[in-house]
Amino acid sequence: MKIGLIGFGKAGKAVANVILQYNDFCLEWVLKNSQGMEKITAKEFLGVDGQDPGLIFSKENMPFSELVDNYPVDIIIDFSDAETISEYGADASERGIKIISAISHYSEDDIKFLKGLAKKTTVFWSPNITLGVNYLLFAASLLKNIAPGVDIEVIEEHFKAKSGVSGTAVKIAETLDLEVENINSLRAGGIVGKHEVVFGFPYQTVRLVHESISREAFGSGALFAAENIKDKPNGFYNFEDILRPYFFNQANFLS
Amino acid sequence: MKIGLIGFGKAGKAVANVILQYNDFCLEWVLKNSQGMEKITAKEFLGVDGQDPGLIFSKENMPFSELVDNYPVDIIIDFSDAETISEYGADASERGIKIISAISHYSEDDIKFLKGLAKKTTVFWSPNITLGVNYLLFAASLLKNIAPGVDIEVIEEHFKAKSGVSGTAVKIAETLDLEVENINSLRAGGIVGKHEVVFGFPYQTVRLVHESISREAFGSGALFAAENIKDKPNGFYNFEDILRPYFFNQANFLS
Amino acid sequence: MKIGLIGFGKAGKAVANVILQYNDFCLEWVLKNSQGMEKITAKEFLGVDGQDPGLIFSKENMPFSELVDNYPVDIIIDFSDAETISEYGADASERGIKIISAISHYSEDDIKFLKGLAKKTTVFWSPNITLGVNYLLFAASLLKNIAPGVDIEVIEEHFKAKSGVSGTAVKIAETLDLEVENINSLRAGGIVGKHEVVFGFPYQTVRLVHESISREAFGSGALFAAENIKDKPNGFYNFEDILRPYFFNQANFLS
Amino acid sequence: MKIGLIGFGKAGKAVANVILQYNDFCLEWVLKNSQGMEKITAKEFLGVDGQDPGLIFSKENMPFSELVDNYPVDIIIDFSDAETISEYGADASERGIKIISAISHYSEDDIKFLKGLAKKTTVFWSPNITLGVNYLLFAASLLKNIAPGVDIEVIEEHFKAKSGVSGTAVKIAETLDLEVENINSLRAGGIVGKHEVVFGFPYQTVRLVHESISREAFGSGALFAAENIKDKPNGFYNFEDILRPYFFNQANFLS
Repeated sequence: MKIGLIGFGKAGKAVANVILQYNDFCLEWVLKNSQGMEKITAKEFLGVDGQDPGLIFSKENMPFSELVDNYPVDIIIDFSDAETISEYGADASERGIKIISAISHYSEDDIKFLKGLAKKTTVFWSPNITLGVNYLLFAASLLKNIAPGVDIEVIEEHFKAKSGVSGTAVKIAETLDLEVENINSLRAGGIVGKHEVVFGFPYQTVRLVHESISREAFGSGALFAAENIKDKPNGFYNFEDILRPYFFNQANFLS
Repeated sequence: MKIGLIGFGKAGKAVANVILQYNDFCLEWVLKNSQGMEKITAKEFLGVDGQDPGLIFSKENMPFSELVDNYPVDIIIDFSDAETISEYGADASERGIKIISAISHYSEDDIKFLKGLAKKTTVFWSPNITLGVNYLLFAASLLKNIAPGVDIEVIEEHFKAKSGVSGTAVKIAETLDLEVENINSLRAGGIVGKHEVVFGFPYQTVRLVHESISREAFGSGALFAAENIKDKPNGFYNFEDILRPYFFNQANFLS
Repeated sequence: MKIGLIGFGKAGKAVANVILQYNDFCLEWVLKNSQGMEKITAKEFLGVDGQDPGLIFSKENMPFSELVDNYPVDIIIDFSDAETISEYGADASERGIKIISAISHYSEDDIKFLKGLAKKTTVFWSPNITLGVNYLLFAASLLKNIAPGVDIEVIEEHFKAKSGVSGTAVKIAETLDLEVENINSLRAGGIVGKHEVVFGFPYQTVRLVHESISREAFGSGALFAAENIKDKPNGFYNFEDILRPYFFNQANFLS
Repeated sequence: MKIGLIGFGKAGKAVANVILQYNDFCLEWVLKNSQGMEKITAKEFLGVDGQDPGLIFSKENMPFSELVDNYPVDIIIDFSDAETISEYGADASERGIKIISAISHYSEDDIKFLKGLAKKTTVFWSPNITLGVNYLLFAASLLKNIAPGVDIEVIEEHFKAKSGVSGTAVKIAETLDLEVENINSLRAGGIVGKHEVVFGFPYQTVRLVHESISREAFGSGALFAAENIKDKPNGFYNFEDILRPYFFNQANFLS
């Protein structure tokens, strides 16, 4: 599967790092906002060996249509910003290139635009594209459904400088219909990111915990999405859509 | 729902304690192995107020058929031992009394017998009848299914005197196809019971944790089973059978 | 060591339960506020075997001076309420009976009174008399002293019905000079009691965690205090006073 | 304080990264085993701004005596290997340059050699130089001393590829006099490093947990050592020697 990556900030670099490690996926190119790194490849920049071309281009020097004419890809993975989809989306969908977007802060209009693109290609969007967090949402939602009256609290821990409640914790609270008072935010030292959902029953407690180790988790999540949408028909998909079939296929473990 | 409880050891008492607290369920009677407590009710013994009769009988003084003639019940909850089912099972199933058994150590023959009873009534069996442990098995199995290559380790902690690996940990290992080396058993002080499944991904970690507070959790689990099998047709059910529908009914939380 | 226990509420009963299990300590009597249990012993009430008399008296039927005339003790352990010390304190100190008080909410005047008693006997007071919590305070204070600039957060978890921030968490915050915003209070289900102090360094995290299993922990703490003050001269002691010597006696573990 | 760093492997680089961030410490130079990086500075290599020279030399091109003649330092921090001390130790101690060594695997003879050097300068050695792990050893040892009969278990978690029991876990077990069976080693995914000491009491549990975030923790530990030995007389010191005074200076927190 040939991949074009749009965006090469901290997350984009980590994602490239993961793509370069898997033989099933080939990083054709990276498209950056700004100029100045075209002379080296993503492999050289990241110090990774491998067969992938991993060419680096900038938007100014290389228009999207010319890029995909010369270096065609099957899937675009977008870790840039909310604006960029308007620059490449229509062209990509016309060509049937699948789109995986990990942009956190799309407007309502952006999402409408994405859904429009989904008429002509497969579009996947997840504001938090890690497998672990999405599984956590899924599993927590299931337990809440089983035990609607259970007491639920959320603990989220991050590095001292992180301001505001984490977006993931807010998402958990929305999904589980919790009050903002049920989110307990700790800020201390260099904690990368930890989310814990505590289910308090009268005589037992269940805890679901997700701990981030590094941003490369975004890369694993994007490739998991790529693997799971590659045979999907045109349409608009989210992370739950690709998790749900795993459940139905699950062997009956207690029998 | 009128309930007859068979078995009044430590677990049985805790289960009675929970039944007596819920208005939807009425503890008609308790059937004990040994004589000597017939003069008081389960309510008096446990110091609980309420409307439930909670009469105490012993097998010697009160044959099962006479008991259910005089004090009919909808469901029998069995926390006694593996032998007892042979004493009341046939009679109960003929009468269409539903059976919930929480016996841990049935033989193959016992289970065959249970399945026979299930032709004429609804039979539910769970060797670990807590909601939390069964949810843990369910959620862990799902994640393993999503990510078959993930590294999995189990930590189980119990009080110092507990000998051998916990049955729940063994069940987790079987369900997730782990080696016995992946079970880490800690024995220290008075820890009631903790099971943790660690899923190690390259860039993130997911942990599912169950902590027992008291044996009353068996009571909650038995009533959860009662609530969920009350409208089920004749047949043999386990905990996964009653958890699975919650998944299918789940609202699509990410859309 | 002969012990008289004052107070027989939930905590008092748990403390009696622990004293009855140790041969080094003998529960001579329990002094209750209210009448009505004088006909049985603490052993019978708690279902514990043993040699200890464990007689039960009430304040109305048995004045303190008459009680200790007839049933002399070495130490009084007080789990009653803030008022009771004024009723027995002067008499006990005159007789040189050591006093261990676990009352949480003494007034300034009460503490002054205790310090007065300490001129004639050994008086120990701890508002949270468990070994674990006091060790936690001690160890956390030490780390804060080593690394004054470290980020610290406190998580405390208790059963749903517990109102207000836990007294122990407030004590931890005072000891470590934290803001009230650094205490994260979770209320869920039947959690007995958990306190976690998180020390966030830039490149590592240290956590000190205390989990309560049952109120019997108060009994262990009271006996630990009894063992450690039995040879102490008259004076007023707290839990830190009895922990500190363990440090000085500690072998140099890294050499 | 002018620092010379010997060794520039993964740990050495992380240590340089930390030194460069603190104004109280100046990284004069790095001495590498192998040639080939002399044209850039440690700042350039690590992408860190700052005033420190951070020159890079190799042993082949720059003899130690010439190096310290031209670029004198107050302290040497050694993250190289067990052999290197024999190359610079005598010269450094003659000049009164303090030595901080973080080498894990010295032989008996090496340590004897270090102690010889300590007659003429201040020598500090710690095989695991993080503050957190050493505090953990210290605090765990204290609790074991307070409660000699408590049940203790150790959990250590590391990335899948790490072979053998972690050296830190072995050190914890030695310090607390545990059996090797009490160490529970988990290997899963990309876990950086977690050590947990579980103290199980009959009615409560205490846990001491250390989690590593990155190798930079070695740098913080080395600078903590530098700060704490800078005014120490000649002699041989370990981490406990520099932690212990914090205890004695500690304010009495419960009074």
